Amino acid sequence: MEENTTTEKIFPPGSVGLVKSQDFHFAPGEVLELDCGRTLRDVTIRFETYGTLNADKSNVILVEHALTGDAHLAGYHTAADKKPGWWEEMVGPGKPFDTNKFFIICSNILGGCSGTTGPGSPDPDTGKPYHMDFPVITISDMVRAQKHLIDHLGIKKLLAVAGGSMGGMLAIQWPISYPDVVESCLAIATSSKISPQSIAFNWIGREAIMSDPTWNNGDYTEQPQKGLSIARMLAHVTYLSDQSMSRKFGRKLQTAEDYSFKFDMDFSVESYLNHQGTRFVERFDANSYLYITRAIDYFDVSDSADGDEHKVFEKVKCPFLVVSFSSDWLFPPYQAKELTRLLLENGNDVTYCDIKSHYGHDAFLLEYETLGKLVDNFLDNIYKEKEGK
Amino acid sequence: MEENTTTEKIFPPGSVGLVKSQDFHFAPGEVLELDCGRTLRDVTIRFETYGTLNADKSNVILVEHALTGDAHLAGYHTAADKKPGWWEEMVGPGKPFDTNKFFIICSNILGGCSGTTGPGSPDPDTGKPYHMDFPVITISDMVRAQKHLIDHLGIKKLLAVAGGSMGGMLAIQWPISYPDVVESCLAIATSSKISPQSIAFNWIGREAIMSDPTWNNGDYTEQPQKGLSIARMLAHVTYLSDQSMSRKFGRKLQTAEDYSFKFDMDFSVESYLNHQGTRFVERFDANSYLYITRAIDYFDVSDSADGDEHKVFEKVKCPFLVVSFSSDWLFPPYQAKELTRLLLENGNDVTYCDIKSHYGHDAFLLEYETLGKLVDNFLDNIYKEKEGK
Repeated sequence: MEENTTTEKIFPPGSVGLVKSQDFHFAPGEVLELDCGRTLRDVTIRFETYGTLNADKSNVILVEHALTGDAHLAGYHTAADKKPGWWEEMVGPGKPFDTNKFFIICSNILGGCSGTTGPGSPDPDTGKPYHMDFPVITISDMVRAQKHLIDHLGIKKLLAVAGGSMGGMLAIQWPISYPDVVESCLAIATSSKISPQSIAFNWIGREAIMSDPTWNNGDYTEQPQKGLSIARMLAHVTYLSDQSMSRKFGRKLQTAEDYSFKFDMDFSVESYLNHQGTRFVERFDANSYLYITRAIDYFDVSDSADGDEHKVFEKVKCPFLVVSFSSDWLFPPYQAKELTRLLLENGNDVTYCDIKSHYGHDAFLLEYETLGKLVDNFLDNIYKEKEGK
Repeated sequence: MEENTTTEKIFPPGSVGLVKSQDFHFAPGEVLELDCGRTLRDVTIRFETYGTLNADKSNVILVEHALTGDAHLAGYHTAADKKPGWWEEMVGPGKPFDTNKFFIICSNILGGCSGTTGPGSPDPDTGKPYHMDFPVITISDMVRAQKHLIDHLGIKKLLAVAGGSMGGMLAIQWPISYPDVVESCLAIATSSKISPQSIAFNWIGREAIMSDPTWNNGDYTEQPQKGLSIARMLAHVTYLSDQSMSRKFGRKLQTAEDYSFKFDMDFSVESYLNHQGTRFVERFDANSYLYITRAIDYFDVSDSADGDEHKVFEKVKCPFLVVSFSSDWLFPPYQAKELTRLLLENGNDVTYCDIKSHYGHDAFLLEYETLGKLVDNFLDNIYKEKEGK
């Protein structure tokens, strides 16, 4: 973490300012075991850190990003950056994930396309990109890869693991995989397993990608634009809510006063989606999309206890903050309640809150005032308890 | 309508038995005016009828099919048919649409691919299929085409127009277009205008079709299988509900005991969707899908009153039955309530019922016991009132 003495001058107050991503490379011989039975070597993990690691390394919080997120959680890579990291409102000095107190790590997940080893990375056996020879990975594999990073940094305990959406799945998996490492968990807009409806949407998105001739069984030289864009547009609808779309777009027409009587973009919502799809193709990799959505499909906490959901958290003793959003239909509140029930039955200390919001799933990125207070309060209690010990 | 003296022997009791579809061809010089400003000639409308037209032609009910439905509402085309028409449970002697009392007509919509003129029909100017030269049509155009059929049959009044889903839109449009013709309206699982969320899903479905290279700007020789299948799978998810999918599939795996760690169909829901997509391509036309979904997008009753929703039903005096289903998120109950509110403000006699169901939008085809009672009762009142006159 570099020192930024000029932060105040060029970045908004409360921003961590300039940050730099780092790459951790597995040592020669270091091997990542995978749930499918295969292994990976020469793994690289891209990560960023914010705040200062204290002497006894007891102030570490790991924040997990969502499906198409990356390690750039907060701050700016250059002074010219127009946009900060993806959870800027939540991470910084005096913010809920307070960099004055905590040392915060965010790493790009295994299978991703933003610096960490994924299907686009070179296979050390061939020197060529893995593409579809990349093993099918799980949320648990992603967590295992991060454990290598944490070990490498000499960190023994995580004061908290936090994440929203798919990031929440990693946050839940962490204490299941490493109950002695994780001291608290923040599971936001997430689930212990997705519903068949979500599996269906993921399936359709992947079909769109794999049906695009440019995809070419994964051996493409340029992104399968059409397929990836369709997958993104579909996913994007599931991130919003019927109500938020009605508020944002209604049935407003894009340019004309009347219908075009063509198949172009007539409605604002069509133009918006089209824009979202196009932009996504510029920043994301189609094969990564396939692998990560599959990992989401496969995630089911009961798998870690041979299908017995009542035994899943047996070894997990840490407190949880579980947050859902009322209009989130991708990770509906009933799933968060189900997770809360499992934890309560296990005797865990659980704070559960359903935040009333019309933003749908995206609320976890937008309702930062309400969410921030919950996170701030939860982490403050954890921190004080820790300090008091 | 042919006589079926052997019906009892070969078909289930309550079935109309053998039926035959008929084609009505526009007379030479007969022209269909369209909302886009263009016209169509040499139009063919495929239709079926059930029951007997009474002497004064006062017992006619027009039933409208949904997006991918057709004129085959009830009964069987051959004794070997395994499946009856699409609303068999609702139409027949003694059934809610009682063929002992009513003369029921169902016609394939304009733009369709099941006998009525659509993008796959020959353009009389060129002798070749219209394909994307077919004009972009509206729900109101579909209704106008049906009016030609009704006129041709010498029918002056419709005792009722009924329909579910998109069929409900036609049912709503009928009294708006022809207030003096329609004597009652049954609008089931439908809306006076769809939400931007539904517009978005339609857009994505069309993008999938139009991105398939086989589609070839609409000039295909075989169906764009992949694109059409993706559009159908996506639409199919919107016809179900989160709850019905959870009940039907859960996270059940298709064949293996464990995940395949591949991108094949692992989950039952994936296999189900794939099957639905494949079957759909065998029976439906991609261009028709484009045109019909566009007509659904464009439908907004307030367009008939220059955007003033309070004036839409000004000339409409007939009673309405409006039915929604609690878990229908494609045509959510709030939209039916909105329609009911507009009608009540207009002084119409409206019966509104939200049927509690977990089937989602498909409930209008599945909850026929509850729906049947409502329809039966509503039509019975209309019929008695008429007879008493």
